[in-house]
Amino acid sequence: MDKLKVIIVGFGHVGRGVLDALQESPDMEVVGIVEVPHIAKRIKEEIGNITIVDNNDITRLGKIDIAILAINSRKVPEIAPIYLEQGINTVDAYDIHGESLIKLREDLDHIAKTHGAVSVISAGWDPGSDSIIRAVLEINAPRGITYVNYGPGMSMGHTVAVKAIEGVDDAISLTIPKGVGMHLRLVYVKLKEGYEMEEVTNKIKNDPYFVHDELHVFKSDNVEDLVDMGHSVNIERKGVSGKTHNQRMQYTLSVNNPAATGQIMVSAARASLKQKPGCYSILEIPIIDFLYGNKKDLLLRLI
Amino acid sequence: MDKLKVIIVGFGHVGRGVLDALQESPDMEVVGIVEVPHIAKRIKEEIGNITIVDNNDITRLGKIDIAILAINSRKVPEIAPIYLEQGINTVDAYDIHGESLIKLREDLDHIAKTHGAVSVISAGWDPGSDSIIRAVLEINAPRGITYVNYGPGMSMGHTVAVKAIEGVDDAISLTIPKGVGMHLRLVYVKLKEGYEMEEVTNKIKNDPYFVHDELHVFKSDNVEDLVDMGHSVNIERKGVSGKTHNQRMQYTLSVNNPAATGQIMVSAARASLKQKPGCYSILEIPIIDFLYGNKKDLLLRLI
Repeated sequence: MDKLKVIIVGFGHVGRGVLDALQESPDMEVVGIVEVPHIAKRIKEEIGNITIVDNNDITRLGKIDIAILAINSRKVPEIAPIYLEQGINTVDAYDIHGESLIKLREDLDHIAKTHGAVSVISAGWDPGSDSIIRAVLEINAPRGITYVNYGPGMSMGHTVAVKAIEGVDDAISLTIPKGVGMHLRLVYVKLKEGYEMEEVTNKIKNDPYFVHDELHVFKSDNVEDLVDMGHSVNIERKGVSGKTHNQRMQYTLSVNNPAATGQIMVSAARASLKQKPGCYSILEIPIIDFLYGNKKDLLLRLI
Repeated sequence: MDKLKVIIVGFGHVGRGVLDALQESPDMEVVGIVEVPHIAKRIKEEIGNITIVDNNDITRLGKIDIAILAINSRKVPEIAPIYLEQGINTVDAYDIHGESLIKLREDLDHIAKTHGAVSVISAGWDPGSDSIIRAVLEINAPRGITYVNYGPGMSMGHTVAVKAIEGVDDAISLTIPKGVGMHLRLVYVKLKEGYEMEEVTNKIKNDPYFVHDELHVFKSDNVEDLVDMGHSVNIERKGVSGKTHNQRMQYTLSVNNPAATGQIMVSAARASLKQKPGCYSILEIPIIDFLYGNKKDLLLRLI
């Protein structure tokens, strides 16, 4: 069997998770990594003999089936079309919920269909495999409330937001679940010289990322010593099946975040090859398509 | 919008769960119940103005889109073709794992395709929505071990097996989880006159349903007072994403068993209308097809 030829676009934490997952997948082959020159130089030793190229130089890599976009979500609408227009499938972990996700799906659907390619969007753990769980809970009990409790763990999005605030030299933001879908944010900040905690704390409090939640800001001179890539989620639903109330379901996940994200993106890459041209969220693809192995064995083991 | 015209084949506990779920589904309409005459007489009052017919008299019900088979799993291979051959979709909760499920899928696939119908098999909670969970855990972490712990709750299959044993007047069999996929069986038996506990206990111990598990048999003169249709499951996996070990996931469900089963079958009935002719397990259908509502709203809420 020919292995699927995959490239990794972006080589941060998630990109490394993708590489690990690809190297452990019997049906996949890494044919290249796309990174900007100054990062390419830095990672050369780490990645051994994998070719690194720039975004506009991917023809050097030969035939590519799938590009896994391990990049900032905000860049996905701009980067995914570059690959789809060349007939290369894309997978991303786009994590901005709401209307922008619907628009991304529509835009990429059009481009993918025009060029005979497949795009799978929002294929991380949340959105991603958690989305499947939320849907399953509603299949079981259509009426009721689902609470999604994130953490304890480090939030990438909030960490980036804090780091962008004036006076912050380094920072991390932890998400702590308070239950029933509410969260507490713990932010650890290393100040730049000449700044005061009170001033920086107020700026964090007024940042749109933080205005909705209880917030506690702490000073730390060694933020890097606090970094742990573990993250967790607890999804619970109490609902109604037919006319029967108090049907209870719960799902918990406690994982190394980039490793889980990378793995799920690789599973989605496999699924992309089995779909007709177009753009798909994870809910629009049969689950079995994500898994390695022949259908009969999978059904015998999983049904 | 025209409502989907659904019939319920078999009106035991699960059939009642199906009826409740249909009556609560805005897109569904119950157009009849299929039962044998002596049961039909008994349930007449309970079901109000729903028409009850015999298996060979369903033409009286007019147009039917879907037949939900709330019948003994062993009868599915014989009953499903009756409907598929008339171009009516079928849904069942076939719960015999292994090769017989693969054969059922193949047989019904052929019949369904020939007659332009869709069959969704094994669409209860286990097999069924639990199968989706097991698959999701492997998408997240392809290597590792999944333990499925059933109970505490009443096992329908084991209860039927005990009731069939000589000397047993009435009985229930409870499944109690011991952890790591192992189970304890608690059986409560009302003896027929002239039989001894020791003798009946030995027969239960040697029944193929019970030989593999730790078993405790108790005497009870009021078995019906012990009946509680609640059931539970706990599915846990510790596995590897990429090269990262100790990724942990857990799912628990605690439900009224026939209500959950009926609801999931009704969700599968909805999904059946969106598939091409053929037979499908729950893993081969996009999750979104099971849910009521328009795609955009579902994606906004669930992704």
